[in-house]
Amino acid sequence: MYWQKNDLVLLISPDGKRFLVKVEERKFSTHHGDIDLGSLCKIKPGEVVKTHKGVSFFTLKPTLYDFIHHLKRHTQIIYPKELGYILMRMGIAPGAKVLECGAGSGALTMTLAWWVRPHGKVFSYEREERFAKVCLENLRKVGLSEWVELKVKDLEEGFDERNADAVFLDVREPWRYLEQAWKALKGGCMLGMLVPTTNQISEILKRIEPMPFIEVEVMEILLRRFKPVAERLRPFDRMVAHTGYLIFARKVWTRTNAPKDNPSCS
Amino acid sequence: MYWQKNDLVLLISPDGKRFLVKVEERKFSTHHGDIDLGSLCKIKPGEVVKTHKGVSFFTLKPTLYDFIHHLKRHTQIIYPKELGYILMRMGIAPGAKVLECGAGSGALTMTLAWWVRPHGKVFSYEREERFAKVCLENLRKVGLSEWVELKVKDLEEGFDERNADAVFLDVREPWRYLEQAWKALKGGCMLGMLVPTTNQISEILKRIEPMPFIEVEVMEILLRRFKPVAERLRPFDRMVAHTGYLIFARKVWTRTNAPKDNPSCS
Amino acid sequence: MYWQKNDLVLLISPDGKRFLVKVEERKFSTHHGDIDLGSLCKIKPGEVVKTHKGVSFFTLKPTLYDFIHHLKRHTQIIYPKELGYILMRMGIAPGAKVLECGAGSGALTMTLAWWVRPHGKVFSYEREERFAKVCLENLRKVGLSEWVELKVKDLEEGFDERNADAVFLDVREPWRYLEQAWKALKGGCMLGMLVPTTNQISEILKRIEPMPFIEVEVMEILLRRFKPVAERLRPFDRMVAHTGYLIFARKVWTRTNAPKDNPSCS
Amino acid sequence: MYWQKNDLVLLISPDGKRFLVKVEERKFSTHHGDIDLGSLCKIKPGEVVKTHKGVSFFTLKPTLYDFIHHLKRHTQIIYPKELGYILMRMGIAPGAKVLECGAGSGALTMTLAWWVRPHGKVFSYEREERFAKVCLENLRKVGLSEWVELKVKDLEEGFDERNADAVFLDVREPWRYLEQAWKALKGGCMLGMLVPTTNQISEILKRIEPMPFIEVEVMEILLRRFKPVAERLRPFDRMVAHTGYLIFARKVWTRTNAPKDNPSCS
Repeated sequence: MYWQKNDLVLLISPDGKRFLVKVEERKFSTHHGDIDLGSLCKIKPGEVVKTHKGVSFFTLKPTLYDFIHHLKRHTQIIYPKELGYILMRMGIAPGAKVLECGAGSGALTMTLAWWVRPHGKVFSYEREERFAKVCLENLRKVGLSEWVELKVKDLEEGFDERNADAVFLDVREPWRYLEQAWKALKGGCMLGMLVPTTNQISEILKRIEPMPFIEVEVMEILLRRFKPVAERLRPFDRMVAHTGYLIFARKVWTRTNAPKDNPSCS
Repeated sequence: MYWQKNDLVLLISPDGKRFLVKVEERKFSTHHGDIDLGSLCKIKPGEVVKTHKGVSFFTLKPTLYDFIHHLKRHTQIIYPKELGYILMRMGIAPGAKVLECGAGSGALTMTLAWWVRPHGKVFSYEREERFAKVCLENLRKVGLSEWVELKVKDLEEGFDERNADAVFLDVREPWRYLEQAWKALKGGCMLGMLVPTTNQISEILKRIEPMPFIEVEVMEILLRRFKPVAERLRPFDRMVAHTGYLIFARKVWTRTNAPKDNPSCS
Repeated sequence: MYWQKNDLVLLISPDGKRFLVKVEERKFSTHHGDIDLGSLCKIKPGEVVKTHKGVSFFTLKPTLYDFIHHLKRHTQIIYPKELGYILMRMGIAPGAKVLECGAGSGALTMTLAWWVRPHGKVFSYEREERFAKVCLENLRKVGLSEWVELKVKDLEEGFDERNADAVFLDVREPWRYLEQAWKALKGGCMLGMLVPTTNQISEILKRIEPMPFIEVEVMEILLRRFKPVAERLRPFDRMVAHTGYLIFARKVWTRTNAPKDNPSCS
Repeated sequence: MYWQKNDLVLLISPDGKRFLVKVEERKFSTHHGDIDLGSLCKIKPGEVVKTHKGVSFFTLKPTLYDFIHHLKRHTQIIYPKELGYILMRMGIAPGAKVLECGAGSGALTMTLAWWVRPHGKVFSYEREERFAKVCLENLRKVGLSEWVELKVKDLEEGFDERNADAVFLDVREPWRYLEQAWKALKGGCMLGMLVPTTNQISEILKRIEPMPFIEVEVMEILLRRFKPVAERLRPFDRMVAHTGYLIFARKVWTRTNAPKDNPSCS
């Protein structure tokens, strides 16, 4: 009924500022005064907590979206509109074994970890030690590190894992790892990639075309917000116009429909 | 390693037609000849199966996206681009208790059931008997009915459940059920809605404004596909321009930041 | 060959700043030093002019787009993406008689004046004296006032003109002037409107439906810019998401295809 | 007041079919019966004409948009949403000298001819005899051929004209003609291009970068239509997702801001 010790809480200030905090014995300083985080145990989710100056903050239950919104970033992250589509598209499920490279700040890592629970596992590769550190910190903060094995490692040598239910590449030159991804995937399962430029799409398409992947798809997703005013409904003046292009493909064993004539890959 | 009895398999014909079948002892007729579905046990996911006429079909592991793509429809369904965003946004998670109304053909029901596994539950309301029947049929086909309690019932009397982690309304006049949704939700948790017209958005905004919901957001999501041709990369000529508008809000106990002056709802 | 006295010149600074100036005997001060505008007579369009500090500015021939980009604004203006479409759609042409209300800062007025030249005329209504003043100032600056008759007048009493080739309403409540617009238009010619909200569209549609207008169309236009980088081609991160909705309709004499049963309007 | 001999008339059938006809002594056959086109002289624009079967057709004044909508097409055409933006952007005006290559079916040619009237001229290059023929036929049909000089000629040898106010390239490999375009343009004036693929944009950007063109811009324009229903306002289900990318640049005499160090082009 009440907030519990170690719960994560989303605080909303009267001026709409958002903070992600934990229920613990410490003070949290805001521009409206201090909040005694331990005192949250005496109120219910959805109620307000007051600062020592008497200013009320709403206490909300953070969702995965809020976790991603608040993660510490050292890199460009994948956005919820793409993360959600990746979830629907790629064969991720509770219990799945999913591989990704690179982890970056961990937006996708966190999303995958969230959804493969309780019996699945995310194997995440990141060659930059400092990004891996931030990613792990982010995962721990929201209690998801248990479902992630984070490897500080270049993908040149390939994934250590096999029979993955899904593989996602969020790296600068994903075409260099297409064969590694193919080897790591279960047959009939999906590879996903995200790249910011059209040149990268073209390079991926060129490289993947002769490989035993089928159903290659390329797309972009746009999200447009509206001002929530009943009598003057209209989109906001500006929007995010581009985050990245998504590319998907499915692993098969032979490239064409005439298996005998087409030696399987590797 | 091989396809197992009762596995769901996505068949892809040489001309790109897609079929969702089960590994079982029966023949499946296609325009390229019959496929012995029992024989799938002798091939691996990602390999091809041949019809009696010798035509090869790829055998892929269907993802949630494929299930939704193939569900039997008697109503307009919610699309994967919106379904994915709902997942990210609303506090849905493995183990969650989620309510929805109406079930329709079950695209959202199926998505929610998929992700609350193994310990969560979806309570789904549908007042039209015939839609409920189709929805249940769809859930059973993909093995997800266990996680859904489907009720053929009008929402006038409200949800039977309380303390839901998330509530979604996909009905013609969602504003009629805002209070019911509020009552059923845990404090600090999210309500989501989807409507096709701007008039409905305005009506919802007008009705929700005085209620103890905060952080009301309205948006639309667009997905644009590209022809996957490396040397002539460009979007497809046409696209889906509209499926619906998404509206989200969060339950609090009092409408404003000055709790004493604002009696709580209900 | 060289810039001529009174020519309008678009100056581009080394850091991309843009200025619209006239070739005349005066100094123009910039953050990079002063430019002797009279000296432009000694250089050719496309060449650079130097400030007294030796900094080079490109001298370009301004287009209608540049004029609109640089007009003094006291109101929200109609953007080139909509202006261009209005030109194509509405029956505007050299020699046309076009009516508009309200003039605002004059972006549309200027565009119409530009294109009805040399024998056409724009009759523009603006009830706010201060906006009319700015509009006229803008028209004079670019030498287009000759083709505009600007009236500081509310449209309540209707347009003074009849037999217009096109009528455009850019006012808060265009539905109040639909009958006035109908009266002012030639038969078979077009009415255009621009409104920022969906509520306004609905109100217009409701009011215009029983009137002798046909082919009612509603649309929005989006423009997305790309970073002009050959090797890393991608859209800019952000874009203008909304300027307004365009509505068009065509005047007929009777509302339906059964003229005898439908008395003509007015 | 009444339709005049040789007027172009847009006929709208009760089921929304559209026909572009001329007032002349002949019968026009439709699926609703024949219309005596000579009889249009007895009705006013905006009134209905009846077929011999008694079915009413509206008679509207066609706009430039309608002409383009009805032109005979042997090639992909440029759409009104792009045509309008080109008009605003490129320095086209009554009296201007504008060059284009290739003419194709003449949508841009017609648009330019329409707007440079009465004293301007469009010089249009088209190397395919058959396209040139269709283009000319289209121009004649709408009475605009007087303002166009159409040349059946490859652009390899360059434009014959100099000092153009604007140059537009709508060809497969516009980068091959950048130098020709530069030579034909007045200083400070604009070059425009339209290409369907991102690879072409990249190629153009690569080639134009070292040339004396500045202010290179790349963009795409999207138009989304709404169902014109007051009480259920929403976009149409599907839309045109891609027609082409627009690229603009401005001719200068030297590539950089340091003219002495940069020899002028050609």
